[in-house]
Amino acid sequence: MIQKTSNSLIETLRDRRQRLANLIDFPAILWSGSSSPRNYPANVFPFRANSHFLYFAGLPLPNTAIRLAAGKLELFMDDPQPESALWHGEMPTREEIAQRIGADAARPMAELELWTQGAATIAVQDAATWTQQSQILNRWVLPQKPPQEIDLELAKAMISLRLIHDEGALTELRKAAAVTVEAHKAGMAATTHAQIEAEVRAAMEQVLIANNMTTSYNSIVTVHGEILHNEQYHHSLQPGDLLLVDVGAETEMGWAADVTRTWSVSGKFSPTQRDIYDIVLAAHDACIAKIHPGVEYQDLHLLACTVITEGLVNLGILQGNSQDLVEMDAHTLFFPHGIGHLLGLDVHDMEDLGEDLAGYDEGRIRSNRFGWGYLRLNRPLRPGMLVTIEPGFYQVPAILNDGDRRAKYGNVVNWERLSQFADVRGIRIEDDVLVTQEGSEVLTAALPTKASEIENLMNS
Amino acid sequence: MIQKTSNSLIETLRDRRQRLANLIDFPAILWSGSSSPRNYPANVFPFRANSHFLYFAGLPLPNTAIRLAAGKLELFMDDPQPESALWHGEMPTREEIAQRIGADAARPMAELELWTQGAATIAVQDAATWTQQSQILNRWVLPQKPPQEIDLELAKAMISLRLIHDEGALTELRKAAAVTVEAHKAGMAATTHAQIEAEVRAAMEQVLIANNMTTSYNSIVTVHGEILHNEQYHHSLQPGDLLLVDVGAETEMGWAADVTRTWSVSGKFSPTQRDIYDIVLAAHDACIAKIHPGVEYQDLHLLACTVITEGLVNLGILQGNSQDLVEMDAHTLFFPHGIGHLLGLDVHDMEDLGEDLAGYDEGRIRSNRFGWGYLRLNRPLRPGMLVTIEPGFYQVPAILNDGDRRAKYGNVVNWERLSQFADVRGIRIEDDVLVTQEGSEVLTAALPTKASEIENLMNS
Repeated sequence: MIQKTSNSLIETLRDRRQRLANLIDFPAILWSGSSSPRNYPANVFPFRANSHFLYFAGLPLPNTAIRLAAGKLELFMDDPQPESALWHGEMPTREEIAQRIGADAARPMAELELWTQGAATIAVQDAATWTQQSQILNRWVLPQKPPQEIDLELAKAMISLRLIHDEGALTELRKAAAVTVEAHKAGMAATTHAQIEAEVRAAMEQVLIANNMTTSYNSIVTVHGEILHNEQYHHSLQPGDLLLVDVGAETEMGWAADVTRTWSVSGKFSPTQRDIYDIVLAAHDACIAKIHPGVEYQDLHLLACTVITEGLVNLGILQGNSQDLVEMDAHTLFFPHGIGHLLGLDVHDMEDLGEDLAGYDEGRIRSNRFGWGYLRLNRPLRPGMLVTIEPGFYQVPAILNDGDRRAKYGNVVNWERLSQFADVRGIRIEDDVLVTQEGSEVLTAALPTKASEIENLMNS
Repeated sequence: MIQKTSNSLIETLRDRRQRLANLIDFPAILWSGSSSPRNYPANVFPFRANSHFLYFAGLPLPNTAIRLAAGKLELFMDDPQPESALWHGEMPTREEIAQRIGADAARPMAELELWTQGAATIAVQDAATWTQQSQILNRWVLPQKPPQEIDLELAKAMISLRLIHDEGALTELRKAAAVTVEAHKAGMAATTHAQIEAEVRAAMEQVLIANNMTTSYNSIVTVHGEILHNEQYHHSLQPGDLLLVDVGAETEMGWAADVTRTWSVSGKFSPTQRDIYDIVLAAHDACIAKIHPGVEYQDLHLLACTVITEGLVNLGILQGNSQDLVEMDAHTLFFPHGIGHLLGLDVHDMEDLGEDLAGYDEGRIRSNRFGWGYLRLNRPLRPGMLVTIEPGFYQVPAILNDGDRRAKYGNVVNWERLSQFADVRGIRIEDDVLVTQEGSEVLTAALPTKASEIENLMNS
């Protein structure tokens, strides 16, 4: 897990803690966390270090804490037990790790309690560690509790730093994006001779594992794209099906990608599938074209709603004036979720701080309108921000058969026309887009989005 | 996750709870657990239901409890929230699930607190659920605390049941074994054109994922077999290396396999590698040949120590009388761990109940001798028990360079002769063996163990 690091990592980490010191004048202690048990204590899920810890420590070190104060980093961890070498081999010592990450001091974990005065923290997810955090800081530190007082100040400083990706982060994010692109290509290639969804998922995750990466979230690989959070993989693939595939890689240092493509099991979209696909793609392309510093992310969401609605009006599925339809949220019949979210060390970046602390600009609150209420990001775009753009079209039975919605929207849908698109249960197209000074850069641009290009890839 | 179940599952589950009722005269409440958060609450590790729950409920249902009393099963779970259909699709209702598993009653979770009187339980691993267990039962239920009083009686009853696998269990265990065999064959085939360990791991886990299974433990795929718990996969593969591969599948219902093979990166063992390999294989074969009801598992461990020691004496690596060498634990220089463990719903079956409650027969305690102290199972074998047999040979620097051991064993090792075997860092051969009335059945027998057969597989 712990490989050689370069001077550039040390400089990146030093720069990050210096920037933190410019934002807060009290110490921060960040814990990495420990492995979560699976079915018994010794059989654990793969260790995932806390993202805030990773931002400053670089390496996924379990059972470790760092204290950041005035631009200095102090490492608190125990040397491996002598008998540990028997089972785990020779592990690097505390001093060796301190050198690799450019720590200013290195101390055993037992000394941490001497260094807690006035220190802020952020709760980690695993119970063993948040219990330790609470004990050492002598106050409750709970992952489900919103941060308060200096912890809130620290959280806001973290957001201010992690919103804008530095070169060290972008190097990792590009790696995650590149491997994710390869995984999707492998999935397309595997589809035409696969019998069930699980085989396509396997071909894709194989690429991640072979590159020493993991999934940044549980993969979605489904012929039932209308089920938005579908983590089943047992359905058989039928030639007329669309396969919706939402799979992203995470690097060893924790940086994520998040990509969705939708392709036809047969390798060729039907005319109806192609009609809807091109509408979703138009929304995707329009949003990306509009990305520029200063643009409001919520305006991208509105743009996607508008493009999708116009497309559905043109197809005869929706009826009426597009602008009116968007104002009455008619698009939510087919596009209920938000246009995307922040991406970084977490696939919903910094969502551990609370649903909206990172995603919503100060003073803004989530809408309670269906559709808009699922928008995870509401800030003006700034260079260095990485966002997903992920419009979709779904025929969700729970939405389309809902009595209240039938009453409200019954007249704006041409249900007979819609019934001709029964082979389009769900389509989503998602890319990872970096806001740049000039506009934007799609980190996942190497993966085709055009229907014809995907067909060519599958049939080549 | 929840697919159709057959009547045979219902009958299996009914039979299991009837057998439980024959052992205890108080109710038992078993929780399934909930998903553990990874880096933020909504990004979770794949759900793994508690094994004791799975034994009686069959399906991996999250956030569910069952109450077992007098052979009846009452299901406690909440129906999906109406809005859940939007994100997760139409989920089966409580009543539908109750039918699938043959429950005698089905109630909302809120009613569970009315049914707790005199009930025993077993702690699950995730903090959210053991907190709920503690609250509902109004006493501390902690996974790290050994079970007491009626909880201990329940634990012993569970051990008595789960030690001896029924036909329903064996059907699942055979599935896990079969897919694991395929995964190892895929790993062998991938090795000759792989650059790093991770690529072999990827080829193997792809087989598991394609079959809708998962790993039953974190895979070991390493050219540094001398590091016993090695979960790094970044090393490059060199032609002279041995690759030690310990990978096992787990079915959707939670049943595990656990298989190790060691092969040569080049596809051909060197003469020195082959010499040691054949000693480990001789120990493996001798243990399996001896398995029979009534045989003491610790005698298999002793047999493996003896065969390995004799082999090393014949090779000139150890010097002296084999029996004397085993008595002075000289074999632990090269074979420090135990010969194996119980296998079932957990890869170290029922280790959640405590390290030795399931593994050690009543009244027996672990040895404090190095080597013997790592033996996880010490019971007489009975038909229906499934055990691993996994002898090994390792050159662990922390052992061989240890000053105390050098003093104690310096004279019994021919260090010059040993130095000729530098290309053998670690070898292990592990199979899953069912004790039968007649002797034994190797569930993983379809995967070759002979060096020549493995070479043929790799070069075919």
